[in-house]
Amino acid sequence: MSSTWGNAIKLSIFGGSHTEAIGVTVDGLPAGEQIDWEEILIQMARRAPGQDPTATARSEKDMPKVLCGLLNGVTTGAPLTAIIENTNQRSKDYENLRVLPRPGHADYTAYLRYGNHHDVRGGGHFSGRLTAPLVFAGALARQILSRRGVTVGSHVVTVGQSQGDEPFEPVHVSPELLNRLNREYFPVIEENAREEMRREIENVRLEADSVGGIVECAVTGMPAGVGNPMFGGVENLISSLVFGIPAVKGIDFGAGFSAAYLRGSQNNDTFYYDEQGNVKTRTNFSGGILGGITSGMPLIFQVAIKPTPSIGKEQDTIHLEKKENAKLVIEGRHDPCIVPRAAPVVEAAACIACLELLAENGSV
Amino acid sequence: MSSTWGNAIKLSIFGGSHTEAIGVTVDGLPAGEQIDWEEILIQMARRAPGQDPTATARSEKDMPKVLCGLLNGVTTGAPLTAIIENTNQRSKDYENLRVLPRPGHADYTAYLRYGNHHDVRGGGHFSGRLTAPLVFAGALARQILSRRGVTVGSHVVTVGQSQGDEPFEPVHVSPELLNRLNREYFPVIEENAREEMRREIENVRLEADSVGGIVECAVTGMPAGVGNPMFGGVENLISSLVFGIPAVKGIDFGAGFSAAYLRGSQNNDTFYYDEQGNVKTRTNFSGGILGGITSGMPLIFQVAIKPTPSIGKEQDTIHLEKKENAKLVIEGRHDPCIVPRAAPVVEAAACIACLELLAENGSV
Amino acid sequence: MSSTWGNAIKLSIFGGSHTEAIGVTVDGLPAGEQIDWEEILIQMARRAPGQDPTATARSEKDMPKVLCGLLNGVTTGAPLTAIIENTNQRSKDYENLRVLPRPGHADYTAYLRYGNHHDVRGGGHFSGRLTAPLVFAGALARQILSRRGVTVGSHVVTVGQSQGDEPFEPVHVSPELLNRLNREYFPVIEENAREEMRREIENVRLEADSVGGIVECAVTGMPAGVGNPMFGGVENLISSLVFGIPAVKGIDFGAGFSAAYLRGSQNNDTFYYDEQGNVKTRTNFSGGILGGITSGMPLIFQVAIKPTPSIGKEQDTIHLEKKENAKLVIEGRHDPCIVPRAAPVVEAAACIACLELLAENGSV
Amino acid sequence: MSSTWGNAIKLSIFGGSHTEAIGVTVDGLPAGEQIDWEEILIQMARRAPGQDPTATARSEKDMPKVLCGLLNGVTTGAPLTAIIENTNQRSKDYENLRVLPRPGHADYTAYLRYGNHHDVRGGGHFSGRLTAPLVFAGALARQILSRRGVTVGSHVVTVGQSQGDEPFEPVHVSPELLNRLNREYFPVIEENAREEMRREIENVRLEADSVGGIVECAVTGMPAGVGNPMFGGVENLISSLVFGIPAVKGIDFGAGFSAAYLRGSQNNDTFYYDEQGNVKTRTNFSGGILGGITSGMPLIFQVAIKPTPSIGKEQDTIHLEKKENAKLVIEGRHDPCIVPRAAPVVEAAACIACLELLAENGSV
Repeated sequence: MSSTWGNAIKLSIFGGSHTEAIGVTVDGLPAGEQIDWEEILIQMARRAPGQDPTATARSEKDMPKVLCGLLNGVTTGAPLTAIIENTNQRSKDYENLRVLPRPGHADYTAYLRYGNHHDVRGGGHFSGRLTAPLVFAGALARQILSRRGVTVGSHVVTVGQSQGDEPFEPVHVSPELLNRLNREYFPVIEENAREEMRREIENVRLEADSVGGIVECAVTGMPAGVGNPMFGGVENLISSLVFGIPAVKGIDFGAGFSAAYLRGSQNNDTFYYDEQGNVKTRTNFSGGILGGITSGMPLIFQVAIKPTPSIGKEQDTIHLEKKENAKLVIEGRHDPCIVPRAAPVVEAAACIACLELLAENGSV
Repeated sequence: MSSTWGNAIKLSIFGGSHTEAIGVTVDGLPAGEQIDWEEILIQMARRAPGQDPTATARSEKDMPKVLCGLLNGVTTGAPLTAIIENTNQRSKDYENLRVLPRPGHADYTAYLRYGNHHDVRGGGHFSGRLTAPLVFAGALARQILSRRGVTVGSHVVTVGQSQGDEPFEPVHVSPELLNRLNREYFPVIEENAREEMRREIENVRLEADSVGGIVECAVTGMPAGVGNPMFGGVENLISSLVFGIPAVKGIDFGAGFSAAYLRGSQNNDTFYYDEQGNVKTRTNFSGGILGGITSGMPLIFQVAIKPTPSIGKEQDTIHLEKKENAKLVIEGRHDPCIVPRAAPVVEAAACIACLELLAENGSV
Repeated sequence: MSSTWGNAIKLSIFGGSHTEAIGVTVDGLPAGEQIDWEEILIQMARRAPGQDPTATARSEKDMPKVLCGLLNGVTTGAPLTAIIENTNQRSKDYENLRVLPRPGHADYTAYLRYGNHHDVRGGGHFSGRLTAPLVFAGALARQILSRRGVTVGSHVVTVGQSQGDEPFEPVHVSPELLNRLNREYFPVIEENAREEMRREIENVRLEADSVGGIVECAVTGMPAGVGNPMFGGVENLISSLVFGIPAVKGIDFGAGFSAAYLRGSQNNDTFYYDEQGNVKTRTNFSGGILGGITSGMPLIFQVAIKPTPSIGKEQDTIHLEKKENAKLVIEGRHDPCIVPRAAPVVEAAACIACLELLAENGSV
Repeated sequence: MSSTWGNAIKLSIFGGSHTEAIGVTVDGLPAGEQIDWEEILIQMARRAPGQDPTATARSEKDMPKVLCGLLNGVTTGAPLTAIIENTNQRSKDYENLRVLPRPGHADYTAYLRYGNHHDVRGGGHFSGRLTAPLVFAGALARQILSRRGVTVGSHVVTVGQSQGDEPFEPVHVSPELLNRLNREYFPVIEENAREEMRREIENVRLEADSVGGIVECAVTGMPAGVGNPMFGGVENLISSLVFGIPAVKGIDFGAGFSAAYLRGSQNNDTFYYDEQGNVKTRTNFSGGILGGITSGMPLIFQVAIKPTPSIGKEQDTIHLEKKENAKLVIEGRHDPCIVPRAAPVVEAAACIACLELLAENGSV
């Protein structure tokens, strides 16, 4: 593990913020899957910086380029590699960051881990830009899942102190809702919530600060009975990917941390046969997972995103060469809130985890 | 993955609630580590059911037996296997559970996954009893870590609706505090909190119900600069183990979900040189992890435990053979709250993850 | 990797020659497989020391004991662990071996790797005795394969300088032949060969020496199209297990090393449709594997076994404490040739590899 | 596993003969390693087709391009990805091969595995061209090893029926010899052997046929005590990579298959202290490996390469659509013997395996 992940479906993510290119190899995809390029670009655009809901999906500058694994748009079964070229390779002097680590960033820990050889430019391999290949891989997985009736979507529940969006109705979340959300730039269930959250973000921007938030993700259509006990459970698998997204500091499934305050008689999801003779539960506090295995109810989980560490305010830090305390002002424009952009990344992680679960199960 | 875990340190956990024995093999332990048996038993006792703080650690019936890997109490470097014999193998008729899956349990999903071949007795391999081998493996790891200055401890923060314990002071948590907590049956920082939580548990018991809670775990002494970017980060590693504990539904690191409500200027931990010239941060919202790599500050994370699903109240369920809705009353005595017993299991997971991190780093 | 192996089917082998017990955990077996205990014991007996073809299969002293994973003789889908208790734990003084490493053994390299903590008694975890759990795991796999039409068998091709047995006819090897061979103690195709080889072994024994040999293994019935390119090929998988057998120093597939002397026009196996419309090849120099993937022809490979290093003759060695050259005479009775006993171990490795291939393919 | 390999050092190889590009990601390289580009190109050139010993190493058309992982020629510690662009992507009609699988190739098995979606052009991901990224990765590893005193080299022992080169002197193989061999296009110890082998190849070419051969590889300078018992042994690791090279059908270590004909008194390598007080063995039948762990003597292994399956002669095959037997003539020029070009690929596999062993051991 590290930048390589998986078992039946294997990812290898490479590149840094200012290297020649970034990219991903996905090994283990089934052969014969038609890939819709427009759908890939829609997901890439949702994650891209500076997007607006009305913007076109075709941002030429971040266009992924497939090197192998597709023939006439169809997967061959061989590893699929795509790269995204970096255009801003030599734009700036980053020597400052080498000695003045940014609070909340990986600058200091990367220095400890790799010494002065770490590529500090834009955060190097720790850059949030590395979520682009993850979204690409997720977009492939999403299309394969879609053909098997599995739908993944998410929305922004909270941004900072704003009131936020209503949560998914755990039992009733529908593929239609997910398919609306998973094409939006700032996905919310309740339109009003978006406006309030945008105001919060705008206020924070004006203060040269940033805010965190919570993304809630749901998956419908996963077959019941997929996953494994112990370390091979659905929760383990999803969290092993989700914590690969920079800024993620927490994850919980179903009622999650709220379950800590509940009683068993509240939290236990009771089974029943519905009119079609299918097994359902009346509630879904488990988030669709019991014993690490899917129950057939929607998978639901929440992800905590910390505020972007790059802020305009002056901050205390250290000078690694002079060995003394120092002040730091990070120049340039900063994204005051990455939560809306994190939503498609969280979905991508869910897509990849679900494809892995199906592949392990021989269902792909 | 599944019941096998790890890379430099590999676990293989086996057994079910009513099989001949349960146990664990730990492969990759360094040779030459003296193992203190009393210390193992203290951890085993903390997790054992029906314990009282004043009880002796030597519960003969759950005594682990080492089959290999130790010679005169010292690790040989070969795989270390320990088993715990089950004494209640044929005590009860479990055919009921085969057709009436318990809400909130893995009975139904195990049935989907393994068919009628699943060993339903006591939950089989999904039983909470399987945390005993995890605690054993963690107790080995803890001793090896201890010799390298690493200390792991936890406490119960909340049980149900009780007010709960105060959290760790993230910057100031001390090995002394952790070493007090990690020997207690119901570990709390503030003694009063324990009494209130015990009352909550007792109330719940009288209602034939159960409650969940939150365990907070801390690690001091981990060297800075350990861990990896992306999927090999400290968060990924710890969560891959922690979600192997039945009833865990959430995990967050440092400020975690709270960070979602903070601003960057609050959440960024600013660096400074202390008087000895060591790099520290003034706050520790990151939980000691930046970019998946340890910063040298204490590692801190919280784990959400759902209420025990086995309750005395009558519940709705289904009859898998008759294909109709049914009622279920689970007979016998039930543990109304496993949160205090989960604390040593969470610590064990942290110990194993930290040993893996050191071993990957060549520090063991 | 180390004593843990696999992906869909995971092995964890534990124990040493003189520990309390040795054993294996097999994780990932399909649920619902009836295990025939007699068949397990037949394989265990073939590997056991001091066996004679006429001996009963029930050697009580090496009887494996299943701790978990079977219920009423049927796999539950949970990890299956079996142990074999060691009865000779304190029989001898091995301190001699700690300072006088036996030539050809792992004594010296284990000393380097684990220091004085290595369990030298009987070779510890490096003992050939550790092939017993491998044979046990293979016997489980064999039964599961058998139900899917896959048959594995082997024979002793050569022992030292004796003329040896005839090789398998690569195209025509039949399950019937394999099913005869895989129940024999000293499996040969041509009965006369066995007698000659036994004479060679007897001669070597009289000289207090030992001999090596070659085992040839074949598998019929594997579906065509199983396996992967590059590092996931059938050859990679089989060899990753076979080199886990002590004394194995080489492996080749199909024509193997002989292919080096052939021309393409000889070595290429030409395709044709047989009368039933099945694709066959007229020859089978490839050993049933092209590009790491099964062709549908029998899998055939040869394994080179070095002479047992424990011999009665005096040998030169070193004294690790005195740091000087020394002489060594290994006391006790020595098996002058382990090749016949290696045959069931090689078959076990083939069975496990084939089960893994089917499991990865979703065919189990 | 499949096209992804490794543990501490992870490879992910991608691309096909006629895709946009082929390449490799190496994850886990130590930071701070200066990479000499000329040395990379020397290794790439040794593997490249149509090379002549006098040719320049700078074949622009197969120039690898590093996308990330190097900064100013020094490893950053992040994944290092290099690609080689394919220039002949649309040159030919390969539909013929889709229905007429070439004997000895993976065409038929790839068709079974991936259906008609397999990229048949030039063999797709099964092409020998995919050894180029392996050589690139090996060339990185070689430089890192070289700084730690480890030298890897190989020579062509046999080509078809020619008498061939003398083998390495197992005890006395020197880094100087290896450093001569590992820069040659057709490496041999004895110059005369090369001429004879070239004549054999020329004769075969005139007959529109091909020949196989044997490559012997040696490694000096590996620290003693590296490697693991069972499935983590040096033999397992090297063979897991070597069988990833197309056309390899066998591997043996030290005396290997010859050991089968020896006695223990011959094959046991007796230990002694040399004049500097170092532990040595008088012979090296073990190939420098005992119990899967390095003994400190040179590592030596032999690899069997089958004759190139692409030959000019007419061959029998099948027509997959017409479901009838057919004839095939493979057009174009064919390399009658890839053995000299396989030598650097075998060395690359050895380099990567040795770096993995050192990294697992914390020595890198």
